[in-house]
Amino acid sequence: MSNPGGSEPSDLAETTRVETFADGVFAIAITLLVLEIKVPHVDEAHGGLWPALAALWPSYVGYVISFFTIGIMWVNHHVIFQYVRKCDRAFLFANVFFLMGIAFVPFPTAVLAEHLPDPATRNAAAVFFSAWFIVIAVMFNILWHTGISGGRLLRADVRQEGLETITRRYRIGPLSYVVTAAVAFVSAWASLTLFFVLAVFWSLSERGEK
Amino acid sequence: MSNPGGSEPSDLAETTRVETFADGVFAIAITLLVLEIKVPHVDEAHGGLWPALAALWPSYVGYVISFFTIGIMWVNHHVIFQYVRKCDRAFLFANVFFLMGIAFVPFPTAVLAEHLPDPATRNAAAVFFSAWFIVIAVMFNILWHTGISGGRLLRADVRQEGLETITRRYRIGPLSYVVTAAVAFVSAWASLTLFFVLAVFWSLSERGEK
Amino acid sequence: MSNPGGSEPSDLAETTRVETFADGVFAIAITLLVLEIKVPHVDEAHGGLWPALAALWPSYVGYVISFFTIGIMWVNHHVIFQYVRKCDRAFLFANVFFLMGIAFVPFPTAVLAEHLPDPATRNAAAVFFSAWFIVIAVMFNILWHTGISGGRLLRADVRQEGLETITRRYRIGPLSYVVTAAVAFVSAWASLTLFFVLAVFWSLSERGEK
Amino acid sequence: MSNPGGSEPSDLAETTRVETFADGVFAIAITLLVLEIKVPHVDEAHGGLWPALAALWPSYVGYVISFFTIGIMWVNHHVIFQYVRKCDRAFLFANVFFLMGIAFVPFPTAVLAEHLPDPATRNAAAVFFSAWFIVIAVMFNILWHTGISGGRLLRADVRQEGLETITRRYRIGPLSYVVTAAVAFVSAWASLTLFFVLAVFWSLSERGEK
Repeated sequence: MSNPGGSEPSDLAETTRVETFADGVFAIAITLLVLEIKVPHVDEAHGGLWPALAALWPSYVGYVISFFTIGIMWVNHHVIFQYVRKCDRAFLFANVFFLMGIAFVPFPTAVLAEHLPDPATRNAAAVFFSAWFIVIAVMFNILWHTGISGGRLLRADVRQEGLETITRRYRIGPLSYVVTAAVAFVSAWASLTLFFVLAVFWSLSERGEK
Repeated sequence: MSNPGGSEPSDLAETTRVETFADGVFAIAITLLVLEIKVPHVDEAHGGLWPALAALWPSYVGYVISFFTIGIMWVNHHVIFQYVRKCDRAFLFANVFFLMGIAFVPFPTAVLAEHLPDPATRNAAAVFFSAWFIVIAVMFNILWHTGISGGRLLRADVRQEGLETITRRYRIGPLSYVVTAAVAFVSAWASLTLFFVLAVFWSLSERGEK
Repeated sequence: MSNPGGSEPSDLAETTRVETFADGVFAIAITLLVLEIKVPHVDEAHGGLWPALAALWPSYVGYVISFFTIGIMWVNHHVIFQYVRKCDRAFLFANVFFLMGIAFVPFPTAVLAEHLPDPATRNAAAVFFSAWFIVIAVMFNILWHTGISGGRLLRADVRQEGLETITRRYRIGPLSYVVTAAVAFVSAWASLTLFFVLAVFWSLSERGEK
Repeated sequence: MSNPGGSEPSDLAETTRVETFADGVFAIAITLLVLEIKVPHVDEAHGGLWPALAALWPSYVGYVISFFTIGIMWVNHHVIFQYVRKCDRAFLFANVFFLMGIAFVPFPTAVLAEHLPDPATRNAAAVFFSAWFIVIAVMFNILWHTGISGGRLLRADVRQEGLETITRRYRIGPLSYVVTAAVAFVSAWASLTLFFVLAVFWSLSERGEK
């Protein structure tokens, strides 16, 4: 049929550019986080600069948690491309869809930082924050399944049992954020602590496999 | 003549860097969209955080539509480079010209988000939004024609009929945004809905070809 | 001596990463330009959205001129790497120095856009704008000379006469911006028009050589 | 065991993408610095535009120092990848951790620029600025040690004595910023001058080795 560009070499090339584009979005989303931290102005720092800087702790907490979580997402996004080496249009769009989730992270982070010091809205902000990561984790699972379904896009030497191990692991993602969201209804701080513990758990457990 | 850098190998290398640069601009433009969504401050959230977050729906609509549309543009930009493998200065500048259009998207998006809740200016904002995508689609066609005209920049194995199919398809782009712009004079919402339908249509139809 | 990383292969690899980093800075600087264009708010658009959007013309002028000029700088930056294929530390730092100039462009652009409608400060803003491009053009010449001096970093097949042609051409850069700066003391508009004419001239003349 | 993606080739591929991602974060952090420089508005420039632009000197100082220092960090980050050619999960996370430090730099830079003209808070701002570079330098040493420990991730032809030279050199980093921080308690200007001298020293000394 009329596919003059050829299918095989162009597909292979695409994967590289998908990764470049994704790396760009990850890098920008993660670096934009700092813009949400507002510099204390001279006239607000009459009690000294240090207390003014210390008062920004909610912004620092948001920065660290989001940075670390996006970092883990980036590492996991890499793992996909150790298996998926070609891409079709469905995978391309699943990737754009997933990146729409990642690029949005500075917003729930800023909401969290703004409302963490306020007892009235703190828990809602933490629920919103966790809820967004449920969405991202679901998008990530959609991306993974789009990549492996049919086997057309996989490397030649991938073993089925390996895919299933990963699939099971990724399924935990959305569930774990459902838990942090549920906890956030009761306590924002307990939820964020759990967020951190989960991040450490994910990084250690994945490392173990390798 | 005095072309010490050699023409053939450097031209090939250029294409890669054009793609890297374009991917950078796409990735940044798409990620900057989130900066236009303003965090509800503590003193604006006295009725609770959820209503305050819900009141930002126009920003979310703008974010999703622009993200998805830039995403499709990015996918289509890739398609060009499945055919065009070398680049001369005319193509380089056509690409810069096209990216000028893409990098501007956060502005009409922010205008749309700001004015979507306002009945007096809503339709004008949607016309402006569609109008900008007419401009981008025209720039895209210029880029495509600069790339394929003369055949000098094409891969060796490209077939003429394939180019013509693509050319016909891309010609629909500006026309479809003329329609959404026309509809926006009457109803912003109908126009945006059509925008979405067209985006889905484009992604499915292109996928069909492959 | 103690150079365990090996000199030859790592030097070659460096060039790629220098280009990637530069492309990143170019792409970001060029895309950040749009952030300087302020969305007309609903309460400012009581005369209608179209007049409010039209009133932003100085921002559009600044956006287009800076985008196009950074684009030309990016194209010229590529030309350097058609000749320079290895890099030492001096070249790395000359590149960082040059990028410091490029990354600063959104600032004089915003100054220009802010003051273009004000007769009292318009010319000063245009002088400042041109003055910054003198600085960038000088930095560009320093980068070029760092790259070609000694011949150590050049491709093997580069011919001396070709280098001299380029060197002569690049020397015009700072001079041309000195002229636009001088004209800006008298008329901001004449200066910006000249800016445009020069940009077109540069793109055409360089294309001719190839 | 269940590692279907294969360990050896994917590890090699990872290094490239780690560098791309890092280059992205460096490029964005360094380019965002300009956003902290506030354009003098028309109504603030009644004494003329030039005095208004001159009054922004603290922002320019912050921009230049941070740009140059991030630039040096970027050059040093490259040096790591002349030795480390594979990466495991520990190295990936050490890299994310280090980039968290780099991406934060626009904040202490903006704090410095805001408080440099204020005698009451100037020194504290300079201490904060130096303190952050102590943190980054420590993170950099952690990254380096994660990369070279065990030797698993190193290029085959790396010599032990070369690693030790580099290790000794990098150890000076945190110490030198401890000195600039200590000096900042007495004089912000002396501290920033020392910052500059150190930057020049680092760039010259590293160049000497090559």
